[in-house]
Amino acid sequence: MPTFEGVAETVAERVTPEADERERLAAAAATLTDRAKAALADHDVDGDVLQVGSTARGTWLAGDRDIDLFVRFPTDYDRADLERIGLAIGHTVLPDGHEEYAEHPYVTGEYEGFDVDLVPCYAVERATDIRSAVDRTPFHTEYLTERLDDTDRTDIRLFKRFLKGIGVYGSDLRTRGFSGYLAELLVLEYGGFEPLLAAAADWHPPLTLDPEDHGVTTFDDPLTVIDPTDPERNVAAVLSAANLARLQHYARDLLADPREGVFDPADRPPLDSDEIAAKLDSRETTAVALVFDTPDIVDDQLYPQLRKSLSGIEAGLESHGFDTVRNATFADDERAVFLFEVTTATTPAVERHAGPPVGVREHAEGFFETYATDEAVYGPFIQGDRYVVERPREITTAEAFLDSDRLFEVGLGARIETALDAGYELRWDEDIASLADRFGVELTEYVDPEP
Amino acid sequence: MPTFEGVAETVAERVTPEADERERLAAAAATLTDRAKAALADHDVDGDVLQVGSTARGTWLAGDRDIDLFVRFPTDYDRADLERIGLAIGHTVLPDGHEEYAEHPYVTGEYEGFDVDLVPCYAVERATDIRSAVDRTPFHTEYLTERLDDTDRTDIRLFKRFLKGIGVYGSDLRTRGFSGYLAELLVLEYGGFEPLLAAAADWHPPLTLDPEDHGVTTFDDPLTVIDPTDPERNVAAVLSAANLARLQHYARDLLADPREGVFDPADRPPLDSDEIAAKLDSRETTAVALVFDTPDIVDDQLYPQLRKSLSGIEAGLESHGFDTVRNATFADDERAVFLFEVTTATTPAVERHAGPPVGVREHAEGFFETYATDEAVYGPFIQGDRYVVERPREITTAEAFLDSDRLFEVGLGARIETALDAGYELRWDEDIASLADRFGVELTEYVDPEP
Repeated sequence: MPTFEGVAETVAERVTPEADERERLAAAAATLTDRAKAALADHDVDGDVLQVGSTARGTWLAGDRDIDLFVRFPTDYDRADLERIGLAIGHTVLPDGHEEYAEHPYVTGEYEGFDVDLVPCYAVERATDIRSAVDRTPFHTEYLTERLDDTDRTDIRLFKRFLKGIGVYGSDLRTRGFSGYLAELLVLEYGGFEPLLAAAADWHPPLTLDPEDHGVTTFDDPLTVIDPTDPERNVAAVLSAANLARLQHYARDLLADPREGVFDPADRPPLDSDEIAAKLDSRETTAVALVFDTPDIVDDQLYPQLRKSLSGIEAGLESHGFDTVRNATFADDERAVFLFEVTTATTPAVERHAGPPVGVREHAEGFFETYATDEAVYGPFIQGDRYVVERPREITTAEAFLDSDRLFEVGLGARIETALDAGYELRWDEDIASLADRFGVELTEYVDPEP
Repeated sequence: MPTFEGVAETVAERVTPEADERERLAAAAATLTDRAKAALADHDVDGDVLQVGSTARGTWLAGDRDIDLFVRFPTDYDRADLERIGLAIGHTVLPDGHEEYAEHPYVTGEYEGFDVDLVPCYAVERATDIRSAVDRTPFHTEYLTERLDDTDRTDIRLFKRFLKGIGVYGSDLRTRGFSGYLAELLVLEYGGFEPLLAAAADWHPPLTLDPEDHGVTTFDDPLTVIDPTDPERNVAAVLSAANLARLQHYARDLLADPREGVFDPADRPPLDSDEIAAKLDSRETTAVALVFDTPDIVDDQLYPQLRKSLSGIEAGLESHGFDTVRNATFADDERAVFLFEVTTATTPAVERHAGPPVGVREHAEGFFETYATDEAVYGPFIQGDRYVVERPREITTAEAFLDSDRLFEVGLGARIETALDAGYELRWDEDIASLADRFGVELTEYVDPEP
């Protein structure tokens, strides 16, 4: 059986950039930094240029090709000037680049095979003085650069590759996993990849780490890592409970059974539509997919809205008596899906509605009077200490709920609501499997779920 | 609109025994008392004979024909002698009588049109010294007789008739309502029928009344009335929450809309089987009746066992995924019924089973290991902070549960279990209506329930 050390060594070799890659990256970064400094001077700005991110800290995975340069402006520039001059410098440095918008605009482009971001920000004194989230990034790089040695860098690469392998690397709102900064802080905190895994295997969430012991507030998150550069910020704020649980699960798994496979994203061959149909059929649920056009928004907007809408529709189904066994949402650039399995396609025509205890006079009398003359209800009668009625249900099939305006009474993401309003298709049971051409991976994960 | 006083007066006239009835009852009671005293002397017992119950206290309803005589033995008789001599005296007093058993044996028979019970008991000094429940009865009669005047007696008759009208008179375990003694104590406590109703309309159960202010313990009952003759006893222990709620409901009803009808048991014409079938059908539930032979036990054993079994089967249905809308049980001397309406006749082939949070390592690892190699389950996968699996259900139809040994895995009354084991029939949906010949009243109440 392979040892943990043996596996770690093999993976480390794969993910550590070769000397050639390092040199080319360093050369490219130096050239771009010089260009940016010259452009700053051309614009008479008394600023500086800083390389940030994993390529600045020597913690990138072999083959990653991101160079992040931050152009720092004095704080007496107003925002409009910073953006205008910042973008102008970006276009000077990256003549073929184009503008993107995160919290504020920046220029992104390619240079000698590297993906380059050129981001204007303010040179604030402390991370707590930031004017926008990007101002914080240089502090992160500075903090880590001062503390990392080559062993740390190897262990950080291993941990990042491990997070990628188990599908939880990235603090975007689609993934809700671990950011690179968070990954590096955790390795530093526990003194290496293996001790971090050993600790994570034993974590009892919620838990809080505070490397600089300067936290001033508490967070309602499963994992809190107080930012060493900002006592008011949780670096792990985006991490979902499920992804934290996945880290714990696979930490135990890797320690118990060291192997390289865990470091590689699962690459399961998707089932074909017949196999998916057969699996769904064997569950004897009522399965239904709402299929609609994906709204044209970035993933960081799309996925939160998909999840909110999924929960809203699930709550709507349950409030109408359709209990869900499981559900899922997935999307590509063109089509998006909400998938539900409910325990029954139909409900009774009546639903029980318990009133107040008869002994709570005012409420009880109000309830009784409301229903006593209502011919459509059964009761009021008395069960235990309460009045009870059975009211007619307007909706008695899942289809009647999903294929009606009722769908729009639940909490939906704004752009999802618009998209559904433009039209959607319902596919039932084995017809869902015909989505396999587009969503074979997602449907395979649904009918054969893994941690 | 009739006034409360007017209605009360009319009903009081109906329920107050005429002079002739009083005289005949008094004469009969006197004759029987003399006979019993003579018999005591014949057996050389230094005891006495006491008339108890509502006919002793002058609080019986016109037409009731119960005479209860208690033959009190000195406490130095052992139980066997008391029973032997007590029954012998009973047969002397009531030559055509026969023996019955409550907590201990007594003789019951007819005399000049009256139903007579002749009950041997011990002459204990205080109600707290009793050797069996019947020893307490004379203290109740003594306590009330000392305190009641004619106005009280009229109000007690009104209240008892009211309790009968609304179906909650009787402390037997079928009714779980108000005993005569409890009814009389309540009228005394509130100073009359109308003030009692006004108070009951405002009660916030649970509540405790303690006429002698000597209670020494608390009870977990919706209504507690500490026995004036025994500080450790709740006179209302048998009263169900629903029947207390009914009293409150109809107290408000009668005060708001005084009318004689409330004093008469509802005598609704039962629906015929077609009407019942149509009503059941319109509810679009899955209705099922278990029909079986009524075990040959007294009502005080039968009804608690029926209710326990009903709850047990309901819990069994729900644990297999069949939520009930409503249920009922009823019986006559020959046949007994459990009636359930479930929301669906079938469940999915899988059921969700949530495991421990992944962060609770020992439990989580145990759960994961249990299911990871189980080909029959979906998962384990991670939802939120937990492992989850979907397990196959063995039972996927309500019929498969009800028509199998699974039925006997739930909590059943002992004699009900035996009776079901001897055989039962399942009737579904509209076929249930064919029970209307035997249980028309019960089925009518089911499909058209009232408070």
